[in-house]
Amino acid sequence: MTDVFTHPWLGGLFDDEEIRQVLSAENSLSEMIAVENAYTEALAETGIVHKADAAEVRKHLSKAAVGITALRDGTAKDGLVIPTLVSELAKGLPDRARKALHKGMTSQDVIDTALVLSLRRVLEIFEQRLTHVLSQLSRLDSSFGQNDLIGRTRMQAALPIQVADRLNGWRAPFESCTNRYPGIRKNLLRLQLGGAVGDRTPWGEHADQVANIMAVKLDLENAAPWHTDRTAIADFTNWLSLLTGGAGKIGQDLMLMSQQGIDEVTLSGGGSSSAMPHKQNPIQAEVLVALAQYNAIQLSGMHMASHHEQERSGTAWTLEWMILPQMVMATGSALMTVSKLLANIERLGTASG
Amino acid sequence: MTDVFTHPWLGGLFDDEEIRQVLSAENSLSEMIAVENAYTEALAETGIVHKADAAEVRKHLSKAAVGITALRDGTAKDGLVIPTLVSELAKGLPDRARKALHKGMTSQDVIDTALVLSLRRVLEIFEQRLTHVLSQLSRLDSSFGQNDLIGRTRMQAALPIQVADRLNGWRAPFESCTNRYPGIRKNLLRLQLGGAVGDRTPWGEHADQVANIMAVKLDLENAAPWHTDRTAIADFTNWLSLLTGGAGKIGQDLMLMSQQGIDEVTLSGGGSSSAMPHKQNPIQAEVLVALAQYNAIQLSGMHMASHHEQERSGTAWTLEWMILPQMVMATGSALMTVSKLLANIERLGTASG
Amino acid sequence: MTDVFTHPWLGGLFDDEEIRQVLSAENSLSEMIAVENAYTEALAETGIVHKADAAEVRKHLSKAAVGITALRDGTAKDGLVIPTLVSELAKGLPDRARKALHKGMTSQDVIDTALVLSLRRVLEIFEQRLTHVLSQLSRLDSSFGQNDLIGRTRMQAALPIQVADRLNGWRAPFESCTNRYPGIRKNLLRLQLGGAVGDRTPWGEHADQVANIMAVKLDLENAAPWHTDRTAIADFTNWLSLLTGGAGKIGQDLMLMSQQGIDEVTLSGGGSSSAMPHKQNPIQAEVLVALAQYNAIQLSGMHMASHHEQERSGTAWTLEWMILPQMVMATGSALMTVSKLLANIERLGTASG
Amino acid sequence: MTDVFTHPWLGGLFDDEEIRQVLSAENSLSEMIAVENAYTEALAETGIVHKADAAEVRKHLSKAAVGITALRDGTAKDGLVIPTLVSELAKGLPDRARKALHKGMTSQDVIDTALVLSLRRVLEIFEQRLTHVLSQLSRLDSSFGQNDLIGRTRMQAALPIQVADRLNGWRAPFESCTNRYPGIRKNLLRLQLGGAVGDRTPWGEHADQVANIMAVKLDLENAAPWHTDRTAIADFTNWLSLLTGGAGKIGQDLMLMSQQGIDEVTLSGGGSSSAMPHKQNPIQAEVLVALAQYNAIQLSGMHMASHHEQERSGTAWTLEWMILPQMVMATGSALMTVSKLLANIERLGTASG
Repeated sequence: MTDVFTHPWLGGLFDDEEIRQVLSAENSLSEMIAVENAYTEALAETGIVHKADAAEVRKHLSKAAVGITALRDGTAKDGLVIPTLVSELAKGLPDRARKALHKGMTSQDVIDTALVLSLRRVLEIFEQRLTHVLSQLSRLDSSFGQNDLIGRTRMQAALPIQVADRLNGWRAPFESCTNRYPGIRKNLLRLQLGGAVGDRTPWGEHADQVANIMAVKLDLENAAPWHTDRTAIADFTNWLSLLTGGAGKIGQDLMLMSQQGIDEVTLSGGGSSSAMPHKQNPIQAEVLVALAQYNAIQLSGMHMASHHEQERSGTAWTLEWMILPQMVMATGSALMTVSKLLANIERLGTASG
Repeated sequence: MTDVFTHPWLGGLFDDEEIRQVLSAENSLSEMIAVENAYTEALAETGIVHKADAAEVRKHLSKAAVGITALRDGTAKDGLVIPTLVSELAKGLPDRARKALHKGMTSQDVIDTALVLSLRRVLEIFEQRLTHVLSQLSRLDSSFGQNDLIGRTRMQAALPIQVADRLNGWRAPFESCTNRYPGIRKNLLRLQLGGAVGDRTPWGEHADQVANIMAVKLDLENAAPWHTDRTAIADFTNWLSLLTGGAGKIGQDLMLMSQQGIDEVTLSGGGSSSAMPHKQNPIQAEVLVALAQYNAIQLSGMHMASHHEQERSGTAWTLEWMILPQMVMATGSALMTVSKLLANIERLGTASG
Repeated sequence: MTDVFTHPWLGGLFDDEEIRQVLSAENSLSEMIAVENAYTEALAETGIVHKADAAEVRKHLSKAAVGITALRDGTAKDGLVIPTLVSELAKGLPDRARKALHKGMTSQDVIDTALVLSLRRVLEIFEQRLTHVLSQLSRLDSSFGQNDLIGRTRMQAALPIQVADRLNGWRAPFESCTNRYPGIRKNLLRLQLGGAVGDRTPWGEHADQVANIMAVKLDLENAAPWHTDRTAIADFTNWLSLLTGGAGKIGQDLMLMSQQGIDEVTLSGGGSSSAMPHKQNPIQAEVLVALAQYNAIQLSGMHMASHHEQERSGTAWTLEWMILPQMVMATGSALMTVSKLLANIERLGTASG
Repeated sequence: MTDVFTHPWLGGLFDDEEIRQVLSAENSLSEMIAVENAYTEALAETGIVHKADAAEVRKHLSKAAVGITALRDGTAKDGLVIPTLVSELAKGLPDRARKALHKGMTSQDVIDTALVLSLRRVLEIFEQRLTHVLSQLSRLDSSFGQNDLIGRTRMQAALPIQVADRLNGWRAPFESCTNRYPGIRKNLLRLQLGGAVGDRTPWGEHADQVANIMAVKLDLENAAPWHTDRTAIADFTNWLSLLTGGAGKIGQDLMLMSQQGIDEVTLSGGGSSSAMPHKQNPIQAEVLVALAQYNAIQLSGMHMASHHEQERSGTAWTLEWMILPQMVMATGSALMTVSKLLANIERLGTASG
């Protein structure tokens, strides 16, 4: 209950239920089992294990009941969930079939590939929200674009502009992020498969084939193992921070525009104060600025977390687990909040005379 | 379920149940009600409200049942919980007594003072753990201090030292933190009471008296309102990062000492690998390094969050809410983990011949 | 003399003379004059000013002698150099021709476009160095790729690999950065032209034409004004941090490989110690790790600096000036240093028996 | 020329000549020689070397001419300046006397102690400036304290306050920093003397005496070697960031107060615009906000740089060299700039009717 997204009441301000479901432990578990499933199929299709054994494993996985307490205890002991997960999944499986389950993969193969499957869903949601924000900005342009506004530079009144000009400034980072979306997505949606030390030796001559089959089944790109090359993840979080930065700009501008004496906007839905009932606080705008700063700070952590020594860094990977989901949540929260805030705009600028 | 401390299985590696209870919503709620209680008493003792009204309020508060959904909805609307909390607390209270509840305070008075009450408990726990870690280091010194070790500088073998010398290096940051503890505590444990704009005008000539009474009842120092001066909080988080840094040094050294070919330590309790059953991964040591890096990164955010414009920054305060609890949890986790890790040391260095 | 790159002796460790020249004040001045030149041409070609006036301005600019003290004093007063630079450039120019110099542009048009011209040269240098590093890695692969090495995960010996596998891990981030280079370059090399409030109104119906001509002359893309959309710059610095991260991985691995007891590498050119003449410190490897951490930290600052309020943020822009050149220098330094370090490798791994 | 403090024209905005002199290479060299001097004296007074040899060394040091090119080349090779500095200082010294120069110390002993000597001067300058800023705030209180102002919370007009209340908010962080000054100073001004691996073995039974004598001569506290315990340095930089944060608050408030439509301040000395001669940009206020954000970001780096593995981390120490001087310069710059800005205030608030 210490993070704002899941906090009983702060969650009202920060939570993004849709993204939280994608990042939930339940969904991670499903994605990890999906990876194991695809792997078992690949082992069978390449003839590394018997088709019958693989079929048994897949049937078994389809009804697997995994004990969360066991996973927790295992993670405490091993630093990651996979050894215990595999044991749990193997319970009740005939010895003969066990080699068709996980054997050859390493924990990182499962966790990273499952992460990518979750992030694919995150990306789709964010793309839809991006599109929605851009359409909201277009609607605001239709409604208020011709209104007058004072252009302000360095916090000082400069020259008259139109609301449309300000809206262009709001649109630009979101359009930039939209343009970067395909590249971010392409680099991120890659199968991770390397085996214990990332060299794919467990599958010998079948290695490429195993990887190809898994990639096809999971609808990912088959790429070289990227266990220590976190470039695509760092890029993704850079993009997240650009998104929250774009939303933060709108928040910051609206905070400035809603100052008494400036009065360039009418917002509905402002927050009330326990001491001053007359106030209408631009709560959502503030949250957007805070989320933008939050992600900007976290991005350093993600770049630190991309420094993997040797064939795998437990330290860097652990740090990634701490920061990445929070950045995704912060971004989801910002995209939701910016939409609510834009929807609350009742007036921008002054109707030109 | 997106933060590692409360995650169903990652929590096994990161969670600190004792600290999590202190930071829990339930406990925050109790602390906020304790602040309201002390305030009501102060209003009565200074004669600002009738003693009977105050008594009624206090009796009412003692059995208050607050609806979490209402708090959540209110936070979504107001950006903070207090307006709704006060409404909830006031439910069923006779109109006459309502002015003995909260009236005059601002949300920040309640939230910041309640935070301080929670952090007092955190400080006490951390001090105990610090003492324990130092005693563990002394025990290790007794057991292994005379053993031989190669001193290493710039990651290179330098000159022979004793294990005691390495232990001195482990002890130093914790001793530094112990020395800083009284100052950190004194600066932090201060009542926040300012009213709407932080100038204590709501209580006129009684202002100092109200504050004094509250401070005594809550066992805090009565200080000038610090609504925009987050120095003590920034200092506290600097201290947290020094603590996790100290624990991280131990983790980093033990990771290096446990490398094959170096073999300067025997650790029990290492984690197993899904691909390589022969490995003993120094999981706890890794976690300590990750937590140290995590807090170092977050500290920037806390300093950003100390930049309050005018009489209160919604943005800076929101950012503080996002980061501070996570830093406290990370520190709690590090202090717990370093103790476990030190307890797992079965040998340090080489018995001198 | 407070930064390590230009420090009299620390510069020996950190300086990158080639990049430093590109970022020098002299070169910035040339680039800013080149922007003014292109602008004057564009004004003439669109008929906004007389061709003769423009010719006079351009002739005048070709021999302009700008007083650095005046620029310094002007920057102290105005917060940026352009108002004084334009006055200095206009000295001795007939009144009639003055409107062919700068008039219509804003300071940011000149400074940002000149920055882009400098960064184009930086990008070219970095691309060459990237290619060189990749070729060095190929040569190492030819020489030592078949040697044996113990793959290490979580700092623990895992399974045997070949040196070629480790080299793949070194190559991967550099290949990722090479793949991202065209996109980074394309997004960055854009003309900035907006006028006082970024809406291109100063040129009325000629606006697109003016921008097109300038873009052609400066060999940049003509894009919408990006005065408040720093996405391309943030992306560029993200890429810089990926580069230093890639170099840092090599440094970190070599530090670990050169430990006594591990001895997986023979390096020439190690640093000596004032106290221990027998030591060979892996200085360059350490510098690479420090530079990687440095850029990871700075990246937060660049994302903070991308949060421009309204039509221009003096604050955000000032922060960008503080951080961006240091990140470029750190990256230049890392690319130079990694090449030196790779050239110092005399052995990797163990010849297989 | 890539850092803003020494840049030919940006230096006009950022430079702090007084602090820059303290941090200059020339001054560092003097401080390092002062450390060698005190050490030679201590060796003589404890009888470790002959008094005559020590006298010869000290005479020699008093006229030492050190070649900067040699120092630079040496730093490039060794990663730090001391091995070459000692060789340079020893040139022309009879063999017999050489053991009275440096022998027994390690590079870190010299560099860290010399750093502390420089930072002592920095602290004195900052303390004077702090006092000056506080007196400026008192003068503003005398002149304008009774003026009316609208208190603003969450960027919204709240309730009327007096200018004195706002000034209290400006004063608070500086008073907090003043209160912390003695502790910061005491912890920082400590001799570093450990020898090669930090255990003071080179001086055997004389170790404490050598350290005591050096400490007395350099007017520092004799403390246990702190080569890997950077707590005091991290605390110092935390304090720097609190100072720049305090100055940044004033800057941010003045930027908001000087908005057209708000007009709560009259400032002289605003910057002009190349496109809009009518504008008066609050340049100094902006710089203060940028410096506050800059130091907040850098603080993460300093905490990362406090993570020393084993008996000395070349990496962490290198990172410290990159960041610490820039943070000191940024703080000096902020304290200078806030004084200039406060001196430019011609009116605050509205004379009450």
